Amino acid sequence: MKIAVDAMGGDFAPQSVIEGVLQARSELTDVEFTLYGDEAQIKPLIDDMTRLTIVHTTEKITSEDEPVRAIRRKKQASMVLAAQAVKDGEADALFSLGNTGALLAAGLFVIGRIKGIDRPGLMPTLPAINSDLGFNMLDVGANAEAKPEHLHQYGLMGNFYAQDVRGIQKPRIGLLNNGTEAGKGDELHKAAHQLLADDLTLNFIGNVEASELLKGVADVVVTDGFTGNATLKAIEGTATIVMSQVKHAIMDAGVKEKIGGLLLKKSVGGIRDKFDTSVYGGAVLLGLKAPVVKAHGAADGRTVYYTVRQIHAMLANQTIQKVIDYFDQQNSPKETD
Amino acid sequence: MKIAVDAMGGDFAPQSVIEGVLQARSELTDVEFTLYGDEAQIKPLIDDMTRLTIVHTTEKITSEDEPVRAIRRKKQASMVLAAQAVKDGEADALFSLGNTGALLAAGLFVIGRIKGIDRPGLMPTLPAINSDLGFNMLDVGANAEAKPEHLHQYGLMGNFYAQDVRGIQKPRIGLLNNGTEAGKGDELHKAAHQLLADDLTLNFIGNVEASELLKGVADVVVTDGFTGNATLKAIEGTATIVMSQVKHAIMDAGVKEKIGGLLLKKSVGGIRDKFDTSVYGGAVLLGLKAPVVKAHGAADGRTVYYTVRQIHAMLANQTIQKVIDYFDQQNSPKETD
Repeated sequence: MKIAVDAMGGDFAPQSVIEGVLQARSELTDVEFTLYGDEAQIKPLIDDMTRLTIVHTTEKITSEDEPVRAIRRKKQASMVLAAQAVKDGEADALFSLGNTGALLAAGLFVIGRIKGIDRPGLMPTLPAINSDLGFNMLDVGANAEAKPEHLHQYGLMGNFYAQDVRGIQKPRIGLLNNGTEAGKGDELHKAAHQLLADDLTLNFIGNVEASELLKGVADVVVTDGFTGNATLKAIEGTATIVMSQVKHAIMDAGVKEKIGGLLLKKSVGGIRDKFDTSVYGGAVLLGLKAPVVKAHGAADGRTVYYTVRQIHAMLANQTIQKVIDYFDQQNSPKETD
Repeated sequence: MKIAVDAMGGDFAPQSVIEGVLQARSELTDVEFTLYGDEAQIKPLIDDMTRLTIVHTTEKITSEDEPVRAIRRKKQASMVLAAQAVKDGEADALFSLGNTGALLAAGLFVIGRIKGIDRPGLMPTLPAINSDLGFNMLDVGANAEAKPEHLHQYGLMGNFYAQDVRGIQKPRIGLLNNGTEAGKGDELHKAAHQLLADDLTLNFIGNVEASELLKGVADVVVTDGFTGNATLKAIEGTATIVMSQVKHAIMDAGVKEKIGGLLLKKSVGGIRDKFDTSVYGGAVLLGLKAPVVKAHGAADGRTVYYTVRQIHAMLANQTIQKVIDYFDQQNSPKETD
């Protein structure tokens, strides 16, 4: 299998990207990498070119670029060339740490949607205190206007992913709503609840509330992109602020607290590890014809390494092919008895 | 001024309610209280009946009751009688720790909406790390289906509240959205942004993201009830879980950590205080003809005390009257030059 890597995306590119790719290469011997980016910057970071190819380009998409315009105009950008390689069948998956909107646009306009999927969804894996597997949530913002069918499709796609990549046989699918009772929510969520409940291929557990997500109440949390975006950011922002307050309390207090702080450093560090999502890899843009995965712009080599492992798991399990086949079957004319 | 108190709402009623009311009474000498509930339970908790009246009833609304049905059928429930007293002009404000949905229904169907306000919004005050004043957010779930005008009205009402009760001269009004740029969001939020930006009576600072709320990015955060509900629950759930992880790390670790834990107990307790919202009082149901305030069901006497202070501030500043006057003026036929 071959992964097209946008080597120039992210805050520490290409350094962090190459670091993670090299670590993954030594472990995953069936993966080849094509690195898109500035050869002058990339080459010095690599001693051994085994299963690595560099496709040189100096153009790149920045975090300030307007996504759709950037994809249309910067035809030689590392992200666009990498997407084109997937489109042309020269690579099986696309990986970038760059501009999320641009990656979404590259996925939609270059690689293309799976037939039958109306709106791809962006799906990160988040931590859950009761499980090392965490939970998935989608859509967290690929798509601001959702219809009930989109949410149903998110449930189906998340289900395949959780089975293949997280190894959960019957993932618990929950619908993010403003109460747990079946009749809760606005029209969108009431209708989505009905579609999910009627789909007997899914282990749908009903509505879940945002307060319960980190407790691991569901394996896959289905939500519209607007609510999912706010919920994800609220979780991330709150965890960051509370942990920084803890750190301040430990570090900035009086001498007594400083002594306590040193002793506690390790165990409080353990909490940080608990909420460390690096091991889950990046956010998957589910609904495209190939795995398209976005790692955080600030990701280090370790996160890049785990993201390659995540992509490897999707390719080895043919997760996207399963989604394609499923929707093909749904859309094919029904046979008569 | 007279406050109608549902003495039977909440997990520790009537004990916690009476405790807080008595503390507030000794400080706020211009307030009279009418307590609605079971006299046999309430009376023994009170030595001195100065500025207190008990209206006896044994009927009450539980947290399991279906809100609208409960309001319509349990006519003698403490919450309904208290709402009726406000409707009849016998009291100036309604305070309850009971079923939120039922209080919303009592507010809407007994007390009634302000003319010109389409949908009242539920507005808690949340903590912000840069300010002891915290920030307000509305709607957090009174109304699942929102229109742009509702969000504009939330901004206007939140503005009056933040000026009067929190003493902020020009409250920064932010719109919760999925990005900070002006063009962000779905149709609802794009249109709401336009209405808020066009309203020159407001100090509208544009879009804010859920990750920035606890940093105090805005004084009043305007949101639709569905997104606001998920965001509030995500913040509360995440803060609770992270703090419980910290506590576990301190308490359950080895001896070294235990020593550190004792030393740190005080400073980590300080973090908890930072996120303690009791001092802000309860959540206001803004848009009704009188102050209707809901404190958390698990609230103790201290929270009840602060909530009475909050109601006192709204009454002393005639905050609701200002909202009534404002919308009266907006709706009156325009004069021609």
